[in-house]
Amino acid sequence: MFEFDILATQGRARAGVFHTPHGDLTTPVFAPVGTQATVKLLTPAQLDELGASLVLSNTYHLYLRPGDDLVKEMGGLHEFMQWHHPMLTDSGGYQVFSLAGTRKIDDDGVTFKSHIDGSTHRFTPEKSIAIQENLGADIIMAFDECSNPNDHAYSRLAMERTHRWAERSLRAHSRADQALFGIIQGGIVPDLRSTSTKFISSLPFPGIAIGGLSVGETKGEMHAMLDLVIQSLPSAKPRYLMGVGTPEDLIDGISRGIDIFDCVLPTRLARHNAAFSSEGRLNLMNASFTHDTRPIDGSCDCYTCQTFTRAYLRHLIVAKELLAGTLLSIHNLHALIHLVKDIRTSILDGTFENKIPSWMEEWRGNAERGAKLPQTD
Amino acid sequence: MFEFDILATQGRARAGVFHTPHGDLTTPVFAPVGTQATVKLLTPAQLDELGASLVLSNTYHLYLRPGDDLVKEMGGLHEFMQWHHPMLTDSGGYQVFSLAGTRKIDDDGVTFKSHIDGSTHRFTPEKSIAIQENLGADIIMAFDECSNPNDHAYSRLAMERTHRWAERSLRAHSRADQALFGIIQGGIVPDLRSTSTKFISSLPFPGIAIGGLSVGETKGEMHAMLDLVIQSLPSAKPRYLMGVGTPEDLIDGISRGIDIFDCVLPTRLARHNAAFSSEGRLNLMNASFTHDTRPIDGSCDCYTCQTFTRAYLRHLIVAKELLAGTLLSIHNLHALIHLVKDIRTSILDGTFENKIPSWMEEWRGNAERGAKLPQTD
Repeated sequence: MFEFDILATQGRARAGVFHTPHGDLTTPVFAPVGTQATVKLLTPAQLDELGASLVLSNTYHLYLRPGDDLVKEMGGLHEFMQWHHPMLTDSGGYQVFSLAGTRKIDDDGVTFKSHIDGSTHRFTPEKSIAIQENLGADIIMAFDECSNPNDHAYSRLAMERTHRWAERSLRAHSRADQALFGIIQGGIVPDLRSTSTKFISSLPFPGIAIGGLSVGETKGEMHAMLDLVIQSLPSAKPRYLMGVGTPEDLIDGISRGIDIFDCVLPTRLARHNAAFSSEGRLNLMNASFTHDTRPIDGSCDCYTCQTFTRAYLRHLIVAKELLAGTLLSIHNLHALIHLVKDIRTSILDGTFENKIPSWMEEWRGNAERGAKLPQTD
Repeated sequence: MFEFDILATQGRARAGVFHTPHGDLTTPVFAPVGTQATVKLLTPAQLDELGASLVLSNTYHLYLRPGDDLVKEMGGLHEFMQWHHPMLTDSGGYQVFSLAGTRKIDDDGVTFKSHIDGSTHRFTPEKSIAIQENLGADIIMAFDECSNPNDHAYSRLAMERTHRWAERSLRAHSRADQALFGIIQGGIVPDLRSTSTKFISSLPFPGIAIGGLSVGETKGEMHAMLDLVIQSLPSAKPRYLMGVGTPEDLIDGISRGIDIFDCVLPTRLARHNAAFSSEGRLNLMNASFTHDTRPIDGSCDCYTCQTFTRAYLRHLIVAKELLAGTLLSIHNLHALIHLVKDIRTSILDGTFENKIPSWMEEWRGNAERGAKLPQTD
């Protein structure tokens, strides 16, 4: 269980298989986010049909509602939401720390107020692991602290805390059918990133995540940190770049050696009328689509593109019909998941590096604009 | 085209086939409502899977948005919304007359203000038919006036207007690939209902609808009017009871000789957390379902009941996840559509009348409560 087989490499890119209790996860892989035990507006049948394998859900949200005890009583997250492929839960840390003004961090953990009813709660590494063991995902995450990348002094403190919490998370972890991944922090300070990479790599985690990126730093800073981290990572463990990203980020991240990604972008954009396409990101509410009989993307074989015109999708949006969110979510998730699957195939057949420029060209203009989206779906 | 074959009868109940350009419609049939060229929250693939055949869409809404000209340009309603089975459009009359205070009726037609932007529009029988010809449904409706059933004097005026408008609708109708149905009015006044039934039956409509019921009268009044109308209707034409109804209404209506039904109830209830079941109507937000591992209805073979627990559905509702509306719509539509299909089978094998008491018992407690729901989905 939790063995990671690397089947092929090209440059730093890898095509692998991660063995989980809910089936073999082929990598690289893009995971849709299902914050509240559902990928918004999609049934598991639709998720399956569009090619999803790994699905992420959020510990903070499930702890508050419906409660991890209830999820455990219902047979765990897979059974509760009826997703029978691999799942991953985050530690809750990122979302708790995002509750600026209502949370208080100390060396033992963090006290925070629920965004739902204002009630007071406390997470520690032990509590986060206990919740994640109740939820029962295949991959669970160590409790960490993600710092503002531009506050270098605080980044050191947060990294040191993250290291102590990583050890505590390991000690607290008891379920052999869950793989606990460690998380590297260190902001955008090269020394800290190196230190964190070496420390987290030295612990007996079956997989390693890179946290604290795509949280406000520049693309150049993210790439420099990725290169620095990956050169020190053990090759034999799966590598997870948290909260990333755009189509270009996926191509770029895979070329640097990342195996697992998740991001709210495709489903969140969908609910805001935006679709990935080889023409760049489209806002389907735009009046220019009123009479447009083409699909979102003529080269896409998702249900939405195989079935509906842009004119119909625009009508749904203008008429405030929520089916628009369903249909755009199907398209956007299919686009990223199949981009990553196509990249995997190209790594296996040795053509990936040659194809990078044309993929980058095809997906140009789909990058996220402005600030990072919140870490929910 | 538009021949109606009655394959079997039992008492007044009939099992038939109505031949349309988009396939044979087996009757009796329950039609989901897709007001704005979509059954809310459901893809056509999901509608198909749950067993839908005929889908109703609303002329008033489509005329305003996206406009019937656009729908025509996109190849008509079937092509626009990608529903390749039979479709029906209403005349727009019911919804325009519901715009109390902003519409003005005269003998030629009705002037009204859009609920979207307040702009002024006018429907006449000729305009309604022209719009419905642009939309291109298989079954279209004559322009009629539905009166308050408790205003008997006005019911006479509205009936007389409906008759003149029926003749004008027939003259305006030009597409041979659309069946224009006439509509009987007359409120709950026996004389008026008899007069209207005879008049509408005398015109060359390939099908006949009963309007102005289920709009505020008692069940007893509705049943009396149904019995009165049906005894004077030609048996060879399909009979459509507009805007009905609950599971009990369907059993009852079929037993009285109705072939076609439509109602917003199953999808509208779904979006308000309510599900049909053999235990009576369930409100899935109820805290009693928090730990309930049963499906909505253990005897139901819809996707929702075959897949999810009540506890999960309640979680989705409490967490404000719109997937709840999708999953409850699937169940509620499946329930009514398959109830009607099961009744059809029982008419064909001669067991319907024996089964009525047990069906009535099974579906007791699912009737709509309080006022009639608006005539949209």
